[in-house]
Amino acid sequence: MEYAAEFFGTMVLVIFGIGANCQVILGSSPSNWTSLSLGWAAAVSLGVWVSGGHINPAVTLALATWRTFPWRKVPGYILSQLLGGIVGAAIVYGIYAHAIDLFEGGTGLRTMKTAGLFGTVPASYLPPATAFFAEFLATAMLLFGVLAFTDPNNKSHLPPPVLPGGIFVLVLGIAACLGMQTGFALNPARDLGPRMLTAMVGYGGQVFTVRNHYWIWCPVIATICGAQMGTLAYDLFLHKGDGGLINKL
Amino acid sequence: MEYAAEFFGTMVLVIFGIGANCQVILGSSPSNWTSLSLGWAAAVSLGVWVSGGHINPAVTLALATWRTFPWRKVPGYILSQLLGGIVGAAIVYGIYAHAIDLFEGGTGLRTMKTAGLFGTVPASYLPPATAFFAEFLATAMLLFGVLAFTDPNNKSHLPPPVLPGGIFVLVLGIAACLGMQTGFALNPARDLGPRMLTAMVGYGGQVFTVRNHYWIWCPVIATICGAQMGTLAYDLFLHKGDGGLINKL
Amino acid sequence: MEYAAEFFGTMVLVIFGIGANCQVILGSSPSNWTSLSLGWAAAVSLGVWVSGGHINPAVTLALATWRTFPWRKVPGYILSQLLGGIVGAAIVYGIYAHAIDLFEGGTGLRTMKTAGLFGTVPASYLPPATAFFAEFLATAMLLFGVLAFTDPNNKSHLPPPVLPGGIFVLVLGIAACLGMQTGFALNPARDLGPRMLTAMVGYGGQVFTVRNHYWIWCPVIATICGAQMGTLAYDLFLHKGDGGLINKL
Amino acid sequence: MEYAAEFFGTMVLVIFGIGANCQVILGSSPSNWTSLSLGWAAAVSLGVWVSGGHINPAVTLALATWRTFPWRKVPGYILSQLLGGIVGAAIVYGIYAHAIDLFEGGTGLRTMKTAGLFGTVPASYLPPATAFFAEFLATAMLLFGVLAFTDPNNKSHLPPPVLPGGIFVLVLGIAACLGMQTGFALNPARDLGPRMLTAMVGYGGQVFTVRNHYWIWCPVIATICGAQMGTLAYDLFLHKGDGGLINKL
Repeated sequence: MEYAAEFFGTMVLVIFGIGANCQVILGSSPSNWTSLSLGWAAAVSLGVWVSGGHINPAVTLALATWRTFPWRKVPGYILSQLLGGIVGAAIVYGIYAHAIDLFEGGTGLRTMKTAGLFGTVPASYLPPATAFFAEFLATAMLLFGVLAFTDPNNKSHLPPPVLPGGIFVLVLGIAACLGMQTGFALNPARDLGPRMLTAMVGYGGQVFTVRNHYWIWCPVIATICGAQMGTLAYDLFLHKGDGGLINKL
Repeated sequence: MEYAAEFFGTMVLVIFGIGANCQVILGSSPSNWTSLSLGWAAAVSLGVWVSGGHINPAVTLALATWRTFPWRKVPGYILSQLLGGIVGAAIVYGIYAHAIDLFEGGTGLRTMKTAGLFGTVPASYLPPATAFFAEFLATAMLLFGVLAFTDPNNKSHLPPPVLPGGIFVLVLGIAACLGMQTGFALNPARDLGPRMLTAMVGYGGQVFTVRNHYWIWCPVIATICGAQMGTLAYDLFLHKGDGGLINKL
Repeated sequence: MEYAAEFFGTMVLVIFGIGANCQVILGSSPSNWTSLSLGWAAAVSLGVWVSGGHINPAVTLALATWRTFPWRKVPGYILSQLLGGIVGAAIVYGIYAHAIDLFEGGTGLRTMKTAGLFGTVPASYLPPATAFFAEFLATAMLLFGVLAFTDPNNKSHLPPPVLPGGIFVLVLGIAACLGMQTGFALNPARDLGPRMLTAMVGYGGQVFTVRNHYWIWCPVIATICGAQMGTLAYDLFLHKGDGGLINKL
Repeated sequence: MEYAAEFFGTMVLVIFGIGANCQVILGSSPSNWTSLSLGWAAAVSLGVWVSGGHINPAVTLALATWRTFPWRKVPGYILSQLLGGIVGAAIVYGIYAHAIDLFEGGTGLRTMKTAGLFGTVPASYLPPATAFFAEFLATAMLLFGVLAFTDPNNKSHLPPPVLPGGIFVLVLGIAACLGMQTGFALNPARDLGPRMLTAMVGYGGQVFTVRNHYWIWCPVIATICGAQMGTLAYDLFLHKGDGGLINKL
């Protein structure tokens, strides 16, 4: 059933993506942002390859708002994605818990120092409005790409087997170009699921209260707004089908 | 309309590409030239994937000179590309303005130290003739690749959905092999658009006067000449169609 | 004959993969985990490209258990893969023996310091259960990907020429996201073959006794169990064909 | 004419590849072996994409020996490839001459310190037999890959537009896994052409005499032998057509 695909796709995305965070930040080998970008690019493309689904509530909502995706499926999709995010994060946490102990400097010690591995935290110098706009922009770019790849009227339309290859390039680009300051959540389920997991395993409520309840206004609201605006802009200016403003100019 | 596609494609290119510059130079994480090359490769391929357009005045001019692209569309194309470059740079500037403040060491301080994030500046040791030739060569290579990918008589001709994959490899190669000394402008709109933006937001006229008005003779004139020469060389020696000198040997 | 393909494919995999380990660890140039991930991704995809085979006993066993691969071919496949692993490791050892001498600090000196280049050794802080689960999970993810790529009912099903491209992304992701702590064996032949080679060329029996006979319970048993569980989970939840539980929900 | 394609393809290969060497070694930015591997991967795949040719005398000789490539074309092919290598190296030298001055510490000073950017020089600790075998093996692997990609009876046979993508992965793998010690010449024209250029521009005859006339027995003879052996092994064990020993087992 497609809800199972959403669950598994998001779980795969989160296992790989949060795994990349843990490996690069906790590892002693000279890893770096390049490794992180490649890891997340692989994470999202593998999630799509395995499931063929949305695996992102912001995408699901944008497709329901502006395309023909049925609203009645939206709650089930989002719930499946969120559950996939929680379960994926729990699995990765199981593998890296000892490395986190070492990094935190005490068994079972859990502080904001490592909470950012799971739920994104913006750079300390970043004002809220900039953080909001950065996630908004990055998610709008994600939708620009996804809509271009899947638009049958676009010259560069990708057939399903190759679609994850385009998504690899897209996420690699977002991570390498627009990701440093907010950690490129891009996806409410990818952020909120792992964040809920951290609250359950010892980080406590601070993961929600940090930076004026960052969790809700940036990785959830900004990404959803960005996806809406990205779809709107794509349809107005680039969409080649009947609905596109571009054809009327 | 295709002008909108040029505008949006160049905007996407610049958002990703200038974003990569900012992330790698301003970031405290151990990012590096590899990250920059991958970021720019993704930037250009995504610009083409989204728009299916030229998104580069040097390409537009070369196709008008040596192929069948109509001259009457050239001014509109170039204007759209330049506007896309300015708007894209403004969007990225909005996200990274605080990181630039930190890097410059003062709020609102804007010097040539960070101007190079937007408009290219050559390495300090590079003589003008070498800078000119480096951009000329890199752009000629860009056209070599683009013309081979899009030449229906070339064995390796790429269908449109896969074309951006070839462009990814092409720009990755140029950035990783020929890009270090001049910052591989390759594209007058990618360089002049962001440079005009910097002049407007506080860097002042120095971004145009620096290095003997570098902005005009290298990222504009050298790239246009390189694109012309690259197309000419491709048509003379490798073009498989009727027009190719290669078939007459 | 397909046994020759298994032998050669695994040999190619091991030549490239163990070569990547040696180059990154023994090299004086600033190489890093990114290079290692790209090297292993290329290794596995080239092994598949050249041979079109399983080149992994855990995959062979999973396909015999849950799919139609005939059990009578299993012993020959596994033997061929193991031999390919030994021969490939011997070839790479021939190239890097002098670099190992330098790294060990004495001609012919062979200690656990470099044994890990051939047979995986987990991070020193990692408890056995976590090491087991990490390899189990990574191999389950490998099967998730491989089964999705080769499932004709999956939307993203990859035709054979492109399959190694998907495997490149898959192994890149596993290496960059889930590989740091155990060295991502993923494959009993890739680990046991090179380990047997080290026992023969001077490292002695310690390569088998280290960490409570790590060689058997983690890179062999955990990867085989992970492959079984990965296939089971894929078939239960994502498999689109008749056998998939997913279609009955 | 196909000789022009060989000339241009090899020139493109050498411009990108030697450019990658110069950028990574001469650059002050934190570039590294990953960048070098990606640069060379792009170089070879772009050379093939543009030309559709062999662009490697070792490949030309192997195809003439074991396949149907006509011997009468061999001298013209090799001469074109060698000329392409010299011209490509001259072009890159023009761009990086000032950076070489800075690196050498004097205008016009040319020593073995930078000669290795053009013609390969093995690691100082490497005995001749190991250097020979390393190049032999790397070139055999190159042929394994190329023959698998272009063998119409191989399941993973790549159509021409996608072939350079496979070559990208192949060269990336060789560079990242087997390239560190000898600089992976793989190709007599790629090595001898640039080496002849260095002899002409001020490095003198030492580029030929160094390491007991390394230039002839390793980057020329070892690569040609490796290509022969790689083709032989592929045809004996993996070739699916009539000529393959594999089908007779």
